[in-house]
Amino acid sequence: MHEVTTCDLTTLKPFIRAFVPVCVPVVMFVTSRPVTADEGMWMPQQIPALASKLEALGFTGDASAFADLTGYPMGAIVSLGGCSASFVSPDGLIATNHHCVQRSLQYNSTPERNLMEQGFLAKTRSDELWNGPGSRVFVTVSVRDVTDDIVGKLDPMLADRMRFEAVEKRVKQQTAAGEQGGLRCTIASFFEGKKWFEISQMEIEDVRLVYAPAAGIGNFGGEVDNWQWPRHTGDFSFYRAYVSPAGKAVAYAKENVPYRPKHWLRVSPRGANPGDLIFVAGYPGRTSRLTPYAEVQQTVEWSMPRTVKRNTDQIALLEKLSMEDQETAIRVAPRLRGLHNSLTKTQGVIKGMHQGGLLAEREAHEKSLLAWIDADPKRKADSGDVLPALNALVADRARTRERDALLAEVAGGTGSVMGAAQTIYRLSIEKPKSDMNRDPEYQERNWSRLREAQDRLQRSLDVKADRVLMTYSLAEVAKLPASQRIDVLDHEIGLAAGMGEAEAGKAIDAFLGKLLAGTRLYQKDVRLACHDMSTADLLAMNDTAIMLTAALYPLTEANREKAKERSGATYRLGPRYAEVLLARHGGAVAPDANGTLRVAYGQVMGVPARDGLRYLPQTTLQGIVEKATGASPFNAPAAELAAIQALRAGKMTPYLDPQLNDVPVDFLSTVDTTGGNSGSATLNSKGELVGLLFDGTYDTVASDYRFDPVRTRSIHVDTRYMLWTMAEVDGATNLLDEINGLPRSVDAPQPTH
Amino acid sequence: MHEVTTCDLTTLKPFIRAFVPVCVPVVMFVTSRPVTADEGMWMPQQIPALASKLEALGFTGDASAFADLTGYPMGAIVSLGGCSASFVSPDGLIATNHHCVQRSLQYNSTPERNLMEQGFLAKTRSDELWNGPGSRVFVTVSVRDVTDDIVGKLDPMLADRMRFEAVEKRVKQQTAAGEQGGLRCTIASFFEGKKWFEISQMEIEDVRLVYAPAAGIGNFGGEVDNWQWPRHTGDFSFYRAYVSPAGKAVAYAKENVPYRPKHWLRVSPRGANPGDLIFVAGYPGRTSRLTPYAEVQQTVEWSMPRTVKRNTDQIALLEKLSMEDQETAIRVAPRLRGLHNSLTKTQGVIKGMHQGGLLAEREAHEKSLLAWIDADPKRKADSGDVLPALNALVADRARTRERDALLAEVAGGTGSVMGAAQTIYRLSIEKPKSDMNRDPEYQERNWSRLREAQDRLQRSLDVKADRVLMTYSLAEVAKLPASQRIDVLDHEIGLAAGMGEAEAGKAIDAFLGKLLAGTRLYQKDVRLACHDMSTADLLAMNDTAIMLTAALYPLTEANREKAKERSGATYRLGPRYAEVLLARHGGAVAPDANGTLRVAYGQVMGVPARDGLRYLPQTTLQGIVEKATGASPFNAPAAELAAIQALRAGKMTPYLDPQLNDVPVDFLSTVDTTGGNSGSATLNSKGELVGLLFDGTYDTVASDYRFDPVRTRSIHVDTRYMLWTMAEVDGATNLLDEINGLPRSVDAPQPTH
Repeated sequence: MHEVTTCDLTTLKPFIRAFVPVCVPVVMFVTSRPVTADEGMWMPQQIPALASKLEALGFTGDASAFADLTGYPMGAIVSLGGCSASFVSPDGLIATNHHCVQRSLQYNSTPERNLMEQGFLAKTRSDELWNGPGSRVFVTVSVRDVTDDIVGKLDPMLADRMRFEAVEKRVKQQTAAGEQGGLRCTIASFFEGKKWFEISQMEIEDVRLVYAPAAGIGNFGGEVDNWQWPRHTGDFSFYRAYVSPAGKAVAYAKENVPYRPKHWLRVSPRGANPGDLIFVAGYPGRTSRLTPYAEVQQTVEWSMPRTVKRNTDQIALLEKLSMEDQETAIRVAPRLRGLHNSLTKTQGVIKGMHQGGLLAEREAHEKSLLAWIDADPKRKADSGDVLPALNALVADRARTRERDALLAEVAGGTGSVMGAAQTIYRLSIEKPKSDMNRDPEYQERNWSRLREAQDRLQRSLDVKADRVLMTYSLAEVAKLPASQRIDVLDHEIGLAAGMGEAEAGKAIDAFLGKLLAGTRLYQKDVRLACHDMSTADLLAMNDTAIMLTAALYPLTEANREKAKERSGATYRLGPRYAEVLLARHGGAVAPDANGTLRVAYGQVMGVPARDGLRYLPQTTLQGIVEKATGASPFNAPAAELAAIQALRAGKMTPYLDPQLNDVPVDFLSTVDTTGGNSGSATLNSKGELVGLLFDGTYDTVASDYRFDPVRTRSIHVDTRYMLWTMAEVDGATNLLDEINGLPRSVDAPQPTH
Repeated sequence: MHEVTTCDLTTLKPFIRAFVPVCVPVVMFVTSRPVTADEGMWMPQQIPALASKLEALGFTGDASAFADLTGYPMGAIVSLGGCSASFVSPDGLIATNHHCVQRSLQYNSTPERNLMEQGFLAKTRSDELWNGPGSRVFVTVSVRDVTDDIVGKLDPMLADRMRFEAVEKRVKQQTAAGEQGGLRCTIASFFEGKKWFEISQMEIEDVRLVYAPAAGIGNFGGEVDNWQWPRHTGDFSFYRAYVSPAGKAVAYAKENVPYRPKHWLRVSPRGANPGDLIFVAGYPGRTSRLTPYAEVQQTVEWSMPRTVKRNTDQIALLEKLSMEDQETAIRVAPRLRGLHNSLTKTQGVIKGMHQGGLLAEREAHEKSLLAWIDADPKRKADSGDVLPALNALVADRARTRERDALLAEVAGGTGSVMGAAQTIYRLSIEKPKSDMNRDPEYQERNWSRLREAQDRLQRSLDVKADRVLMTYSLAEVAKLPASQRIDVLDHEIGLAAGMGEAEAGKAIDAFLGKLLAGTRLYQKDVRLACHDMSTADLLAMNDTAIMLTAALYPLTEANREKAKERSGATYRLGPRYAEVLLARHGGAVAPDANGTLRVAYGQVMGVPARDGLRYLPQTTLQGIVEKATGASPFNAPAAELAAIQALRAGKMTPYLDPQLNDVPVDFLSTVDTTGGNSGSATLNSKGELVGLLFDGTYDTVASDYRFDPVRTRSIHVDTRYMLWTMAEVDGATNLLDEINGLPRSVDAPQPTH
């Protein structure tokens, strides 16, 4: 499934990552391949320029409507931070994917009442369940070009570290200025710093769970069908945004009232059909189609195989734990899902890059660019140094990559007690600084979100999971070569280069016993109290997790410093690189995805899947009957199977497709999407909601690195399946009434006929 | 894959089974469903009556050509006994499936030179390898209606056991008379004894291996792809028929010469393309589409689940053995392949009958027939007793089915030393009788084949395999209920009803230790010597396997007697049943398959496979590249991958399909086929060979019990892939010259323009 991450702090930070690309110096530029009809996650303001292409695909509406972020339909499109979503009623009802509401289902589950399995329906507003801290709805209200403000008149001779400082400072100032009016402001770079935009968003903090079908519908097929077709997943759920009675975005409070958006999508009861032109509006996370070859090569040949190995091993460890302990099982379930998802995706990317030949294409592509630069003396003089310099940055990073990756795991492991300690400790160091001098992640504007993250961490923090995962990572720390040792860990644990596995294992076991017994950070109240403490007070606690974090701080800080210097270099080189590429290729190009609002378009269409096999564009209820086994992940609920039987016996439904003589479930499209797009509204030419994007086929995943115009397909759930399930399986009549019963927009004109 | 059996004596007996249906009282009649264009494995003489249907599908040839078994193309169609094949050169070259030549590859393999893996090509005639004893080519030369001779003027009051005797005697007499001229003669019943035909065949005994590609081509995909689509198996190989210099069918001799058939097929270099009308001519084994419901129900609900359990368990046992011992591995390989194949097929039939609703259809069908009989007083008086009486036979057999199935396994286990002992012992009892009074299997005409089977058994007989499989069967014998005990085994082993598993296991282990140590029948010479011995002399050997067989003989003989009585009842009831059905339905109907020569027709066509998925009609070399992993069963040879690369680099080949821009590998068709059809010639409208039938899709297997006109698809290898492999991979230029270089027929006219 498409999702950025599901269970850690970083889910909250897509925009932070977008405007401070410290660790991922991604260069964005233009490809030489002909841009196909369906490639491109476009900035909304680019859509009007595509009008003639859209008309060729049968579009008769007004393309400029997409550029108006406060009009219909874009005013209804929202981000959940990591997932996409949309308003579908005047009372702030939000449609998104089932897999995007997992954290809420987890937060509201108990061993006795597992909402992740059985689903949830609030029959009245008062039954709606708060998602817990950290859940957000972001409504983008404006996007403004601020390139001059951020990188205008920068001294070209500035050293890289100073260049980084200067850009970061301007970003902070611009952000602060932009947030005067109470909106959340994000400064995002496009085309590797050639363009900068300021994105202003309303940030709704009280978000509640309204309806999620059972796992046997919402996650039907589970990991077995993940990235696969034919697909029969009912990957939809509903949230509702709440604000204060005065209409302000405030923290959760019982007396809050439903938010009334200016726009909400009409939900079409006719879904999408083969050949239909459709649009997907949402927040794709990140693509690297235009990254230089050296960077992609390192990702494909080092990072991804490493991910495959780690995820495989960690899944085995956590699944074993889950079988032993039901409470641990609930805590680690979303993390397991994330690991599985990332494992499958990573394997697919590796396959596509190697077997599909995409890596070789990228290499050939860069060689041809270099030859083109070399062919002209002036070009060579102007730009001949750019690629070698960017490659040198990659090589520099590679020198300590093993050590740095392990350090990040141990010192700030996602969802672990050490991750919590690192946030607490760094906050204590950043707080005494003036806000403008703080690391952006630790500026005052993020404090409440950091605090909420510590709060909701309680649902997934598990000492047993920490122990097996740290044991795993430290065993590799023990094996690091002499040139990459982590001295602090060697000293604390008693490790040394070349030590035998058994000896190291014993030392690690003893160390973790002390570490995990000596920390009180597994207690939520302690973690929250720590948020207000000074560094000295923290150290005085003598908490083992804090003390280890402090001991590791000099090295983690040195790594951050180095990364900032590399980013400064990227700010210097990236725009020049983009320029030489634009000079060579030109044309209307969508920038790589960076977590900001985009619109993509395409058609409902099957695809030749493998030699001798074709994926048809739609699936139907019939496939659910064929796949249902009664056991997870093919545990279609009895109520659903009975409803299908009733349909077969002649029960009428408005959601029947006369062509298929069945209710459509999922469909394929040529629309260009990626992680973060999950839950995105899928719109027809009239701007009506016809489905929700929730996945791509396995052949699609390598498109993050190079778009494949032939095989790429996105997977959507059809609104007819959503509405049929609500009507015939779960009896969600209250929501059907809310969706269907009212005019669609308070005042705005419709974008089409 | 379609095959009747691969590694046991019964492979030699399709015709014996066809004319003495002792154990399988299959009733054949007419279905009420509209006969679709493609249903039916027709007797060749029925084809002319289908001329208008064929014309509607675009046929412009002379349909009556198919009825002439001595003309073109039918004169080129042969049986291998269990598989089908066809002559493709004037020098007796025979095309069939790779999986049909497994026994020859096994017979000619050694631990050092595993032909099953590496394949084989004779570059000259003198390199061709004798298949070993028991391999046959049967050329059907005439088919004659002998109904009156077999069942005319039978006393309607005869008791069932006497009726069986009378029919068997007439069959034997007719067979003996028919074989006066030196041909092999088979009397086969159609429409459950309503019709009887005499089939005369030339029986060629010296058959040699000419060419088989490597397993990485001939069995590419192996068990993983078995019954699946998309398929990329190059399931083709070549034999050659040899006769004495005087042109007689004689035993293998070095000086024998290639047989020169009167007709041989033109091999088309243009293969088959989507929409093409094609014909499949071959020897389908057995279908039960018209069997009464009670029989089908017992098969689906008792026999098949039993097969699934046994095959699963036996595969595990034999695979474990194979890993421990390379010689055992070679011996049991064909048996393992047969077990896998039957397991997959049986699971598919169960799925189709249950999930596909075919069993329920059969039940409803019979209920409606019963209602129709009851609705008319005369019909009720005439035929009301038929179905209840047939059902009573099924119920009678069911009473001791557990015991009888286990007895058959222990006393005559396929490919085991006990199976060999049973043949030897029964032969010694039958031999002293006059030939007319012998059991048909033991008549003189079968002696040389029985002997050859004992000879070739040496290649697969394995004491370790016998031990694990007999341990498995005897453990179940130990668990039989008190009402179904096998007293002889209880006594010999020391078993009793209700005995604990451990105790029984110990007794069985001790018993098998003695049994297997005390027999010399693992030695080929001893087995062959036994074929000439009297019962008394055999008993005097005091061989443990012979002694156990003798001890079990009274019970096995009593079971045969009971089966004969039931068959006699079937001879009485079957024709009446067929009559009532014909009275109700009428029309041109193909009889159920019974191992005799048939022609089926259909079109090259894809199929909706599952909800959201479509099988395309063809696969190409591209799929081999996609699937190849280097490891079995996806171990495409390096030479093949290089040849594909050369093709991609521009090397010309006449076998390229311009539509696909690749060489086609396999294709799907709507042709109605079943086990035994393997290796069947696939002909185009001109009677040219365009492929070889080798399998059906998984959705097709239940069609043996009820034809599914929508989902049924056969799988063929395209001649273009055969010829391309011969030319570009294996350098079989000698065979290409032989196939291409000469006129196609000595004298006969062609069936079409």
